[in-house]
Amino acid sequence: MSLVEPPAVLVEDLLRAALAEDLGRAGDVTTDAIIPADHGSSGAIVARQPGRIAGLGPSTRVFGLLSADVEVDLAVADGDDVEGAAALATVAGPTRALLVGERTCLNLLGRLCGIATATADMVRRIEGTGARIVDTRKTTPGLRALEKYAVRCGGGANHRFGLDDAVLIKDNHIAAVGSVGDAIKRVHHHVGHLVSVEVEVDDLNQLAEALAAGVDAVLCDNMPLDMLRGAVAMARGRCLVEASGGITPDTVRAVAETGVDLISAGWLTHSVRQLDVAFDLTT
Amino acid sequence: MSLVEPPAVLVEDLLRAALAEDLGRAGDVTTDAIIPADHGSSGAIVARQPGRIAGLGPSTRVFGLLSADVEVDLAVADGDDVEGAAALATVAGPTRALLVGERTCLNLLGRLCGIATATADMVRRIEGTGARIVDTRKTTPGLRALEKYAVRCGGGANHRFGLDDAVLIKDNHIAAVGSVGDAIKRVHHHVGHLVSVEVEVDDLNQLAEALAAGVDAVLCDNMPLDMLRGAVAMARGRCLVEASGGITPDTVRAVAETGVDLISAGWLTHSVRQLDVAFDLTT
Amino acid sequence: MSLVEPPAVLVEDLLRAALAEDLGRAGDVTTDAIIPADHGSSGAIVARQPGRIAGLGPSTRVFGLLSADVEVDLAVADGDDVEGAAALATVAGPTRALLVGERTCLNLLGRLCGIATATADMVRRIEGTGARIVDTRKTTPGLRALEKYAVRCGGGANHRFGLDDAVLIKDNHIAAVGSVGDAIKRVHHHVGHLVSVEVEVDDLNQLAEALAAGVDAVLCDNMPLDMLRGAVAMARGRCLVEASGGITPDTVRAVAETGVDLISAGWLTHSVRQLDVAFDLTT
Amino acid sequence: MSLVEPPAVLVEDLLRAALAEDLGRAGDVTTDAIIPADHGSSGAIVARQPGRIAGLGPSTRVFGLLSADVEVDLAVADGDDVEGAAALATVAGPTRALLVGERTCLNLLGRLCGIATATADMVRRIEGTGARIVDTRKTTPGLRALEKYAVRCGGGANHRFGLDDAVLIKDNHIAAVGSVGDAIKRVHHHVGHLVSVEVEVDDLNQLAEALAAGVDAVLCDNMPLDMLRGAVAMARGRCLVEASGGITPDTVRAVAETGVDLISAGWLTHSVRQLDVAFDLTT
Amino acid sequence: MSLVEPPAVLVEDLLRAALAEDLGRAGDVTTDAIIPADHGSSGAIVARQPGRIAGLGPSTRVFGLLSADVEVDLAVADGDDVEGAAALATVAGPTRALLVGERTCLNLLGRLCGIATATADMVRRIEGTGARIVDTRKTTPGLRALEKYAVRCGGGANHRFGLDDAVLIKDNHIAAVGSVGDAIKRVHHHVGHLVSVEVEVDDLNQLAEALAAGVDAVLCDNMPLDMLRGAVAMARGRCLVEASGGITPDTVRAVAETGVDLISAGWLTHSVRQLDVAFDLTT
Amino acid sequence: MSLVEPPAVLVEDLLRAALAEDLGRAGDVTTDAIIPADHGSSGAIVARQPGRIAGLGPSTRVFGLLSADVEVDLAVADGDDVEGAAALATVAGPTRALLVGERTCLNLLGRLCGIATATADMVRRIEGTGARIVDTRKTTPGLRALEKYAVRCGGGANHRFGLDDAVLIKDNHIAAVGSVGDAIKRVHHHVGHLVSVEVEVDDLNQLAEALAAGVDAVLCDNMPLDMLRGAVAMARGRCLVEASGGITPDTVRAVAETGVDLISAGWLTHSVRQLDVAFDLTT
Repeated sequence: MSLVEPPAVLVEDLLRAALAEDLGRAGDVTTDAIIPADHGSSGAIVARQPGRIAGLGPSTRVFGLLSADVEVDLAVADGDDVEGAAALATVAGPTRALLVGERTCLNLLGRLCGIATATADMVRRIEGTGARIVDTRKTTPGLRALEKYAVRCGGGANHRFGLDDAVLIKDNHIAAVGSVGDAIKRVHHHVGHLVSVEVEVDDLNQLAEALAAGVDAVLCDNMPLDMLRGAVAMARGRCLVEASGGITPDTVRAVAETGVDLISAGWLTHSVRQLDVAFDLTT
Repeated sequence: MSLVEPPAVLVEDLLRAALAEDLGRAGDVTTDAIIPADHGSSGAIVARQPGRIAGLGPSTRVFGLLSADVEVDLAVADGDDVEGAAALATVAGPTRALLVGERTCLNLLGRLCGIATATADMVRRIEGTGARIVDTRKTTPGLRALEKYAVRCGGGANHRFGLDDAVLIKDNHIAAVGSVGDAIKRVHHHVGHLVSVEVEVDDLNQLAEALAAGVDAVLCDNMPLDMLRGAVAMARGRCLVEASGGITPDTVRAVAETGVDLISAGWLTHSVRQLDVAFDLTT
Repeated sequence: MSLVEPPAVLVEDLLRAALAEDLGRAGDVTTDAIIPADHGSSGAIVARQPGRIAGLGPSTRVFGLLSADVEVDLAVADGDDVEGAAALATVAGPTRALLVGERTCLNLLGRLCGIATATADMVRRIEGTGARIVDTRKTTPGLRALEKYAVRCGGGANHRFGLDDAVLIKDNHIAAVGSVGDAIKRVHHHVGHLVSVEVEVDDLNQLAEALAAGVDAVLCDNMPLDMLRGAVAMARGRCLVEASGGITPDTVRAVAETGVDLISAGWLTHSVRQLDVAFDLTT
Repeated sequence: MSLVEPPAVLVEDLLRAALAEDLGRAGDVTTDAIIPADHGSSGAIVARQPGRIAGLGPSTRVFGLLSADVEVDLAVADGDDVEGAAALATVAGPTRALLVGERTCLNLLGRLCGIATATADMVRRIEGTGARIVDTRKTTPGLRALEKYAVRCGGGANHRFGLDDAVLIKDNHIAAVGSVGDAIKRVHHHVGHLVSVEVEVDDLNQLAEALAAGVDAVLCDNMPLDMLRGAVAMARGRCLVEASGGITPDTVRAVAETGVDLISAGWLTHSVRQLDVAFDLTT
Repeated sequence: MSLVEPPAVLVEDLLRAALAEDLGRAGDVTTDAIIPADHGSSGAIVARQPGRIAGLGPSTRVFGLLSADVEVDLAVADGDDVEGAAALATVAGPTRALLVGERTCLNLLGRLCGIATATADMVRRIEGTGARIVDTRKTTPGLRALEKYAVRCGGGANHRFGLDDAVLIKDNHIAAVGSVGDAIKRVHHHVGHLVSVEVEVDDLNQLAEALAAGVDAVLCDNMPLDMLRGAVAMARGRCLVEASGGITPDTVRAVAETGVDLISAGWLTHSVRQLDVAFDLTT
Repeated sequence: MSLVEPPAVLVEDLLRAALAEDLGRAGDVTTDAIIPADHGSSGAIVARQPGRIAGLGPSTRVFGLLSADVEVDLAVADGDDVEGAAALATVAGPTRALLVGERTCLNLLGRLCGIATATADMVRRIEGTGARIVDTRKTTPGLRALEKYAVRCGGGANHRFGLDDAVLIKDNHIAAVGSVGDAIKRVHHHVGHLVSVEVEVDDLNQLAEALAAGVDAVLCDNMPLDMLRGAVAMARGRCLVEASGGITPDTVRAVAETGVDLISAGWLTHSVRQLDVAFDLTT
């Protein structure tokens, strides 16, 4: 039950904008010219590769925005793994609505499944360690809530959603005030009691300073594995330890085995290969 | 001079939405807590990998939306190739504006440079053939105009921008009316004199039918190379020939050597690896 | 089947804005004060003049935005010709919704029928020639897609929808680069393979230059009839010929008889007399 | 000093929407391909017919939305009469901005000058009578404030702006409650002390009823001239008398001579012929 | 029947914005984590204090925006007085929708009922005098139409809705032209025949000047009671007299007894104490 | 330095909407009729009561939206305390812009200063205790970020901004799953590592359960003072303790003295009396 979609209002605004972008001023001139208004069809949304599904509900909602007469039946649920050639959903209704909505649906679905699949792969690679895979703010402009939802569908967890829902003190912040400790102190005077504080540290001295000042988590950026193990030992029981920096499927296991709590990977969202999904009209 | 950015109005709307998504209700609580309002800095946007630049102007415009006191100087131009560790632009102004805008700028820039770099790579691979690389409608919801601009920066050309600016008759359209010829005839009665008509064909019979009915281009979907050569021979001088379907850097040269005019690759936009770009505060 | 309305999303946004403009902050204070909320009525939308119908579906959709309890039955279809005093549709539901939506509906419908009627008149005047009547970009701000739809309802065809869906090289463009041929060459390097190219020519020398460079159509602006006949002769089989400039119902036949393919008339949209339509409450 | 433009916020929203409608996704592909970014020009907005100017400030503001480097100098003011071939304004700046904004500017300006010119003509025709020309709600969706401003530029006055800023009791309202008097009574209980009340009357009995109930104005719809004179005599000193219904330049003088205070003409806005305005690049 | 809600379009836009403000990017993470999607509930909206109800329909409409499966039954109507602990409405449907919408509903409802209750209190205090309580433009940004509706629910009347629907000449306007009479004269040349004119006067000399120039109402700002009585005597039968300035429940009766027609109180909207309303899940 | 305004983008959108609401379609007809366009003035924004200032920068930004020629000089800063009759800012520029923007500026400023003043009063009343005053989600629709900023200006701290930036488990959530512990467990599986968790408890048993499950804070709703003291004792060092429920200036000190960490008061925002602020034109 943990796979809750982003607010429908937000999803529909995105779909409407995507449709407007595709329809332009004159709409689908090809379909208008060829397909009669009363022509009906049904079709299947299929995955042509194995992968983890994400965004099936949100992306197929586009058909309902085009016609109240479209019926969508989902064959799998977000978070499910499918084999190649799997039917994900059937869509039936006016052919025009189906053809107009197809590309918008697939562009969104392919991307979200791609993110979920990449996340699920990383999650599998660190199985048995205590670490969790988390995302970053390196998301596509306009799609953050959906892409972070896809990470959850892949078994990952979400880092903060934006600049306002948690504090993350980075090197530039520290440079501006002189020390990790001072930066944390300023933050504690500033934020509400429900705002968590994380700080980026480059070495164990900074980590010590952060632990002394008190934080919820430390982000160890680009640390060598040895140093990471040292950080885990120092921080144990005092705050969460997050590793980040150039994480890929090849490197993630070694990082996880250092004992860190969290591993964040911008790679999940900024360089996603879409899952190959298609829409096949069956009648 | 052919690298004209999408309309500024459109770009600024996108940047504003991306900022709103990142700022949420309370804004950048970390920066607000730590960096004084009158603190100034300058920094460099750098590429950490070699690649083709795209979207430098549009993406750095985000800083101006945050403060009228930010100055941006571009060191390279869209369409340029850079080595790794290249400075792309310097940005100077209030530190808060720089830190708030950084992620939005990079998220957009990394993606667009990634698309341009992938496109440029494909373009180089087919050098000496007469073919051109073109994009598809498999773009990110909300980013179509910018992603198609990035393809141009990469040396590619643009296929249609949406459902309304050209006719593309696909298999589903043909199935609904029974024949390629009938579908084309319906279209010719429907569209204005400046709307071009392309039709998807699966074999040479359909191609013959299309040529008889008269079209501007044919899209040969997933044809074997031999059949593609046949299509080029049949269509020569009568319409453009576009190849599509599973085009990758590995396969593109062989396809180009069949003599087709255009090769379209959804891969350029639906599965882009971002170029690794970063923002380094220097003072 | 060629009378396909603009995308519903676009139409509803327009209707909502028009309603907001009419309702202001307090809504229809007269109707609110006088008509009980549960008062129902039915009425007829009627044409008080003969004319060609356009926009009946889009304009009557305003009632559904005001109340889910309104039923609209169309008695005629867009593209039909009606005599004076013809009932176009019946509308039944809450009286308040009917009275509030009436003016917005009629303001749109009267204008679109006016355009269709004027277009149909021009089309009839050139019957038997091979020419088609086309519109221009001289449309009302905000109404372009609907006004171009009305031209189609009148039997005309659409010129380009905006600055982005086709190239139209005008005198100012030519002046900036020095020659018709150079301008066309620059364009061919710039645009995608599905973007058509038309160029404005003032005399037969420019036409020769355009034909040599290769274009899809030429726009002969304000040419005398003799020169127009010469242009038709030169261009035959090589590109379409469009006549424009001060076209009115009185002059259109003579222009059509020169053999041009297309006649564009800004008059259809920039100076339309609305068709006299009204809403009569019957119960 | 009475010619105050509609709020700038409103005008700019309209211009932005009109630009977006014209630019589409890819912008002005012709100008982008041909005109270098640093090419500058100046041009003149000219009227090719004599007329009354309206909307020169609002419509030329479109250039500033496209480039901060455009300078606009107005040669005449809204409310001025010009001869044919008059220069209305000069516009200088980047050629691209000039060519992109030209059509949006002219589409708005031509329409508003057309309304002002038609209004000024009607105003001249009733000179010496005590009547004033007023507009109606029969305006273009989205343009009401600007079109009503154009009526003021033409020397006319504005009727209510929408359904909420004054009460206008029409025949359908009266029918629903049974009598003019009852309808007025309901309204008086309902509206604030600054909301004026006008009632439509078909004959002198209804007029008597309205005067007894107390109103600010009566709208005499389609009354014969004799009855109108009778209405004027009855209402003198008790409320304003407005004549409406099929008013044209040919009939307006006779109506004005009956002594009515106001003559409203939907014709001014629903069937305007645009004034012929153009933009000539001079360098 | 005089309690007509603001246009639904306006209300829904406000509710959607309020929801977006509360949901942020990730939505209600607590409810999502704990309440299953298919969990249903019903609950009651209750008033915990006696008061006058306003905005029950508009505020409960938020649940319908969250789920089509919510049913709302109103137990009382806007304009009703309720005792403490009164059930105002029952709401049944998906528990998630109920919990998500609750706060937005109550924030709006509590404020509107607070305004209506304060208004009703003032109205009761002046019972038997001829005066009416009216509101001002001192409303919450974004809520004007709803807050003015709440004043009507409280038995008050509405002053103008904004700067455009009536003229109100204030001291700063008079200062700029030199005299009350000149200011009124300028206005009469400027505005349409349905726009009422009110002028603020500070003493009886200004009142005399206003009466001579002709106005619909005078606003006597902060006048002592004696002077107010003098103003009423002077203005009787010639225009309405409005008292304003620091009106509170304690002072309103004495002001009303001077014989003024209208008493305006910014206090009703700018300093409202909300009525204590709550949402109790019952199943 | 902790008084950081909400993002400017957000503030300007609100101001624009407020202006649109006030200007309607025709704008400020009074000012337009009376004040010449080139008339300039300067004025002072003054507080007529002692209070804590909040929102001076955001609210005065409205003048810049109306004219680029307005200059605003702030005499005090947000967070300052002022005596009655204090000048807060001077505003100079075109008189029209000043008169049009005045009401929107004051409506916002008076409300925010009212919230800050009420907050500052509560903060003073608990001086010397360890408790902090925090706000709630009982804010005005559309104004949440600004109202929470005003609370900070008053010396209070912010509770969560919406449903998405922290978990707050309430009685309805607990009821749905059966126990406090189960609810907390579900949440821990669901949310990211930077999302804090608070739970509402009604008695010490629930508190014990919450402490066992592990939370960041507990909200003790409407607990008697004795029980509150017990809760503080139990929770010491394990989580923060927040008291809420009917907090007023009269009761807040006693609650603070129980040793709670946080006291939340909806009263600060849902029932604010505005600070009396005015705009005096001085020339």
